[in-house]
Amino acid sequence: MTSTFGRIFRVTTFGESHGGGVGCIVDGCPPRLALTEADIQPDLDRRRPGQSRLVTQRQEADEVEILSGTFEGVTLGSPISMLVRNKDARPGAYDNMRDLFRPSHADFTTEAKYGLRNWQGGGRASARETIGRVAAAAIARKILAQVAGIEVLAWVSEVNGITAEVDQNEVTLEQVEADPTRCPDPVAAAAITAAIDQARRDGDSLGGVVTCVARSVPAGLGTPVFGKIDADLAGALISLPAAKGFEIGSGFAGTTMTGTSHNDAFEPGDDPASPTTPTNFSGGVQGGISNGMTIVTRTAFKPTATISSPQKTVDRDGNAVELAAKGRHDPCVLPRAVPMVEAMTLLVLVDAWLSQQTVDVL
Amino acid sequence: MTSTFGRIFRVTTFGESHGGGVGCIVDGCPPRLALTEADIQPDLDRRRPGQSRLVTQRQEADEVEILSGTFEGVTLGSPISMLVRNKDARPGAYDNMRDLFRPSHADFTTEAKYGLRNWQGGGRASARETIGRVAAAAIARKILAQVAGIEVLAWVSEVNGITAEVDQNEVTLEQVEADPTRCPDPVAAAAITAAIDQARRDGDSLGGVVTCVARSVPAGLGTPVFGKIDADLAGALISLPAAKGFEIGSGFAGTTMTGTSHNDAFEPGDDPASPTTPTNFSGGVQGGISNGMTIVTRTAFKPTATISSPQKTVDRDGNAVELAAKGRHDPCVLPRAVPMVEAMTLLVLVDAWLSQQTVDVL
Amino acid sequence: MTSTFGRIFRVTTFGESHGGGVGCIVDGCPPRLALTEADIQPDLDRRRPGQSRLVTQRQEADEVEILSGTFEGVTLGSPISMLVRNKDARPGAYDNMRDLFRPSHADFTTEAKYGLRNWQGGGRASARETIGRVAAAAIARKILAQVAGIEVLAWVSEVNGITAEVDQNEVTLEQVEADPTRCPDPVAAAAITAAIDQARRDGDSLGGVVTCVARSVPAGLGTPVFGKIDADLAGALISLPAAKGFEIGSGFAGTTMTGTSHNDAFEPGDDPASPTTPTNFSGGVQGGISNGMTIVTRTAFKPTATISSPQKTVDRDGNAVELAAKGRHDPCVLPRAVPMVEAMTLLVLVDAWLSQQTVDVL
Amino acid sequence: MTSTFGRIFRVTTFGESHGGGVGCIVDGCPPRLALTEADIQPDLDRRRPGQSRLVTQRQEADEVEILSGTFEGVTLGSPISMLVRNKDARPGAYDNMRDLFRPSHADFTTEAKYGLRNWQGGGRASARETIGRVAAAAIARKILAQVAGIEVLAWVSEVNGITAEVDQNEVTLEQVEADPTRCPDPVAAAAITAAIDQARRDGDSLGGVVTCVARSVPAGLGTPVFGKIDADLAGALISLPAAKGFEIGSGFAGTTMTGTSHNDAFEPGDDPASPTTPTNFSGGVQGGISNGMTIVTRTAFKPTATISSPQKTVDRDGNAVELAAKGRHDPCVLPRAVPMVEAMTLLVLVDAWLSQQTVDVL
Repeated sequence: MTSTFGRIFRVTTFGESHGGGVGCIVDGCPPRLALTEADIQPDLDRRRPGQSRLVTQRQEADEVEILSGTFEGVTLGSPISMLVRNKDARPGAYDNMRDLFRPSHADFTTEAKYGLRNWQGGGRASARETIGRVAAAAIARKILAQVAGIEVLAWVSEVNGITAEVDQNEVTLEQVEADPTRCPDPVAAAAITAAIDQARRDGDSLGGVVTCVARSVPAGLGTPVFGKIDADLAGALISLPAAKGFEIGSGFAGTTMTGTSHNDAFEPGDDPASPTTPTNFSGGVQGGISNGMTIVTRTAFKPTATISSPQKTVDRDGNAVELAAKGRHDPCVLPRAVPMVEAMTLLVLVDAWLSQQTVDVL
Repeated sequence: MTSTFGRIFRVTTFGESHGGGVGCIVDGCPPRLALTEADIQPDLDRRRPGQSRLVTQRQEADEVEILSGTFEGVTLGSPISMLVRNKDARPGAYDNMRDLFRPSHADFTTEAKYGLRNWQGGGRASARETIGRVAAAAIARKILAQVAGIEVLAWVSEVNGITAEVDQNEVTLEQVEADPTRCPDPVAAAAITAAIDQARRDGDSLGGVVTCVARSVPAGLGTPVFGKIDADLAGALISLPAAKGFEIGSGFAGTTMTGTSHNDAFEPGDDPASPTTPTNFSGGVQGGISNGMTIVTRTAFKPTATISSPQKTVDRDGNAVELAAKGRHDPCVLPRAVPMVEAMTLLVLVDAWLSQQTVDVL
Repeated sequence: MTSTFGRIFRVTTFGESHGGGVGCIVDGCPPRLALTEADIQPDLDRRRPGQSRLVTQRQEADEVEILSGTFEGVTLGSPISMLVRNKDARPGAYDNMRDLFRPSHADFTTEAKYGLRNWQGGGRASARETIGRVAAAAIARKILAQVAGIEVLAWVSEVNGITAEVDQNEVTLEQVEADPTRCPDPVAAAAITAAIDQARRDGDSLGGVVTCVARSVPAGLGTPVFGKIDADLAGALISLPAAKGFEIGSGFAGTTMTGTSHNDAFEPGDDPASPTTPTNFSGGVQGGISNGMTIVTRTAFKPTATISSPQKTVDRDGNAVELAAKGRHDPCVLPRAVPMVEAMTLLVLVDAWLSQQTVDVL
Repeated sequence: MTSTFGRIFRVTTFGESHGGGVGCIVDGCPPRLALTEADIQPDLDRRRPGQSRLVTQRQEADEVEILSGTFEGVTLGSPISMLVRNKDARPGAYDNMRDLFRPSHADFTTEAKYGLRNWQGGGRASARETIGRVAAAAIARKILAQVAGIEVLAWVSEVNGITAEVDQNEVTLEQVEADPTRCPDPVAAAAITAAIDQARRDGDSLGGVVTCVARSVPAGLGTPVFGKIDADLAGALISLPAAKGFEIGSGFAGTTMTGTSHNDAFEPGDDPASPTTPTNFSGGVQGGISNGMTIVTRTAFKPTATISSPQKTVDRDGNAVELAAKGRHDPCVLPRAVPMVEAMTLLVLVDAWLSQQTVDVL
């Protein structure tokens, strides 16, 4: 344990990178939502490897099957189980990993915890596990759009120090998807593309930052102590493979401001009950609860641990060994991290939104 | 909801800044642990306001009473309830807050969610709520030291851009507590002190960063997907008041490194089963599971929202108003945030350590 | 663990029979409910020992204090902490229990689990722990009455084979409270009183059955698999001290009927969407979900383990010893079990009702 | 929600009687347990319809596939997902159920809650959902046998008033499985067979009681308040389709005994730390915690709601209609309920056993 996320819209994922398949059960999805595989597949396709020369060449259709929870095209209110079969089994491709621990992977820690591992890949630590999350989040996306017009959008805002200029309020999904980098600033996208190509040639890898906005979130989502929406987002986003840092609103940069400049002064809004703030250093969350402004987060991803250069490591007996160079690798996961960041943000928001329904009852 | 933290060592806090009192119930504490109020009070004293001229002058003894769960000085295995009475009720001190929303506080969001608030202070969003967390964590600290020799230590590493030089491996509690700033670099501490004094004179406030290490954590704590120890730490630390950013290991800085330099190469350790890494960009966690190296996090805190300068805001009817200057305030919460950061880190670790006991059973 | 009940309206109790006090935290109570100690105390008074010569003579005021979660007489939406101090400490009264295990009490099992116990009474297994449950349920009662007109009422329907004749549809709280036995059939009540008096003279004890109805429960509460309302009631009621059996609707008697007579035929109701059933062998629940008919349960309580006759047992070293006769005891807990049964029923229903709010959102 | 059972060994089931399939995810299974489909299939075969003329003729292989969580024949510690495809789709067989509510089924309550249902069968309320539980419990059975020698065995002890004489201490699985009734008393089994045959001819159905024992359970499992092992068993067993009553130990019969005869006197055991009780009215549980004696429960199942005689009911518009006679039905679910009762008992025990590992750590 624990493979379950959420309090009300509860997602339990299963599956390793190798084995029968990956997927999830979504428990707590409201009934009477129109839902078929066609609602899920597009987000899985965005997450899938092999979409362009920029990302890993592992070719898998990742076709999702809904096993339960729907009837005549609508949700029943019962658990929605979704399955994606594993197909790209290349016997022997991982044989050299059987007895050694790849640096900065989960090989050693998995064995330290469980006493064994599926050495034919990353097991549960593989990004392939996120298929279940992305599939579940596609449902969340549909609910949030339908009930509250909430839109969640992420993009690559930085790779290896190359920073994009993006208007957080105006950027669209089309702009993000227009380039394989998922960086909506064409100038930065070109530089990032060149950097990724160079890293591949060098047998090296790059990290970066994904920015995510959630627009039209009503005020009142989240709870004051352990269900803070910013804390839930932090936990959700750092749970993604390779994530090492999280910011909401002003983040680390805000620590060099002072209170007089950092405080978001309230101004009357169109609706007397909904004041607005011209600045948004809070990132849409105050005291753990959404304030009606756009929620803005930044998640840092380290350079991919899989590189094709030789590396020093140890084997299972504790002997020093060298991990030989390997052929192909994905030098930058950032474009594929975008739908994963959206997925975790959507899962946090749908749960907070549903939880709110139990508050306004008297 | 939700006011409960943890899966096995479960802490439920209660209490607002004003009202009868604050505290917690700790459910799942193992039996036969020697425990009295004397084990709890020191950490509460570190968290308490009024310890020095640097922090808020609200004077409260914050004396803890254990109401249940112990017998003849040891834990029973039953829920440990702890209570700290609220004492510093200054009737009228908050009267001007009844009908307006302080900028970047939780006043507006609390009302947006619940339709009312205890306007005599910050309510659940007050740092006073953390008394329950710190009290619970004092128990966790004792357990972790006893069963595994784990030590958790935090300090102020940055205030308003003033950065401390600290040896993460050698710094001690004594060095941290030697200065009211809780910055163990004397030069930085002096500069921080001056900056805080100036901010007080300016009616302004400052933010900063708290670094926290967990030493002697065995490999194997945490789980691969939603119970990742780094994700749990992120969620735990961002749940602290005013926290806006989180990093583990290389954090955001790691995004400008490449895989060849960022990967932590394994070397044989003294114990063949325990390889070590000369570098620690992973921050002690790989794939969500501890790897035996020191766990290192950094948490960013924004400048305190409470300032004594006048501010623009709105009232409950949506009208623009000015929040008048007020007398006293705490211009920098960083020193008091140190025991809170330790507390949340301890709560994550004790839960992960206890969870591990259910894995090694076959 | 686990001391927490409920998914949304979450009640965590604390406290042993001896020690500082007992109580609970209620997390997830909706805001803006008028609530003071005056709403809680009456149910505690019904639960309290010493109400009549029929029940134990331990005299405790059991006065509740609300420590948090309310402001100006209404709930805030934050955790409601309630405390009842323990007062009846009679040093020495339990000295003979230090080293031996009372038959059919939790003394032995507590030590088997935890390696120690508070031998000055029943510890967590004491009926005194139910104070926290009854206090929390008083809030649930108020919510359910307010939002849906739901009424929960229990009574003593059987003691030691003496069976009461009660019209489940018409019986009122006043009728139940009219007699110290809480049996609303005066003839049976008189016989039960005589039986209890005789048991006291004999140094013996009696068991019985508490029937509970929940009226005006709307159709749709509960979930189909692990949150079935009948299963939740079973778990809740068997968690009461001394409970050994549970029935809903036809219960064990239904096993001798056949399907043609046991099935509750639907008839059109006043509202086309609300059919009714002239029979109610289902006990108001079908497939785990309420059907709009009255929910009817029966809970069996064994004869109280505390008797004043001498008994054979063993001491902590495993030696055979005799537990000497003791002076006073409560020969029949049934009257006091009535408010406990209501409490657990209320906690199940309020949680199911609040959960339902997350279903009807599309 | 909620489709998840357990705190540590967490089972989430999915699937309706009609649709893609049914199954479960088991999260929290310890690693390094030898496990293949061959460990699961036998229990599924016992649960399966069509095993004899006594039970429903629906013919499904119910072949289980393990989709994740094992590698080279052992568990990985990661979630174990298991799938059984639905095969027996008889289009049109349920057409007459589209617009009316079968008496004492979950048709009406499902629609009352969710606003729709999969009318091609019982949906989530179908006994087919228990496939996921039985599959998960087969793993629990293996763990409990391996770590503690615990054995769980159930049998049909009563059908329509015909009562079996069974020695609870000596009865074996072979004896239970020797007859299609799963009643190990041959005389009673013959009478039950005749009664079932008669009920089929009458278009009627029968109820009964399943007794279950758990042998070699160590003292110390369960917790004192809301994790009581008897309460968890009650909730687990009443969650089975058609269950209406639960008893542990003396149950309802114990209410006519007195304390002097009902108390289980302790006697010294072979091990001084393990006293025994010659009587076992407690049913192996005292104060919610196992005492080392055999755990004994009885679960009452009502007569099956599905009968082939015509019945009065209403349609979705609230009109009175008659549900026509249908061809085939299973007149008594008791034999198939036996593996389901074992399954829920195993799930409670494995969770309690694993939880205990977090207690004995100091």
